Amino acid sequence: MSGRPTDPAPYYRLHVFCCTNRRADGHPRGSCAARGSEPLRDYLKQKARAAGIEDVRINAAGCLDRCELGPTMVIYPEGVWYRYETREDVDEILESHIKNGVRVGRLILRPEDGPNKEAKIA
Amino acid sequence: MSGRPTDPAPYYRLHVFCCTNRRADGHPRGSCAARGSEPLRDYLKQKARAAGIEDVRINAAGCLDRCELGPTMVIYPEGVWYRYETREDVDEILESHIKNGVRVGRLILRPEDGPNKEAKIA
Repeated sequence: MSGRPTDPAPYYRLHVFCCTNRRADGHPRGSCAARGSEPLRDYLKQKARAAGIEDVRINAAGCLDRCELGPTMVIYPEGVWYRYETREDVDEILESHIKNGVRVGRLILRPEDGPNKEAKIA
Repeated sequence: MSGRPTDPAPYYRLHVFCCTNRRADGHPRGSCAARGSEPLRDYLKQKARAAGIEDVRINAAGCLDRCELGPTMVIYPEGVWYRYETREDVDEILESHIKNGVRVGRLILRPEDGPNKEAKIA
């Protein structure tokens, strides 16, 4: 469990943040939106709603600062990061992780995947 | 701790999401941006950077769906929500919670503060 015994109960069972930041074309870091995150995030939201999932929020987020690896999402409270490129990736994250808590190993990002630990407040 | 023993280590020690969603003037729910969230989020980001905090990300987020209570932020992995209205509120969250892990009780939002549990995927 996250939090402390005295913290309020979670407002959402899971809170999913999909980076939808867009940088100008040609930026050396690229961006999740330039890599197609927006329609995939919309697809995940739509599929979650269609599945009747009411205790999870599928959120858009500004730059999560792992642009080079994008499109990226992070699921809290567990803090598990994914790279997702296709609707099939999104379907698997929804069915496996969001519905059943089973991590999708092939899509998980690890800290050592980078890009770095600098400029995290940028 | 959040996550499972087999999950990767956290990429950020804390991940702060400040809602910067803006709805049209006159929308019955209002919005965090209409309530002043954007300059306060910029201020928090600036102050955290000035304090040399490198293991925390201060993120912008789309609608967190607690618009009526805004401006809202949520800090993960603990999942603690705050309403902040002034620079003094932001300073206190930074000094107390972000730097020292001590919750700011007067600003915490609890699940029963609402607004509701409907439309969380919206």
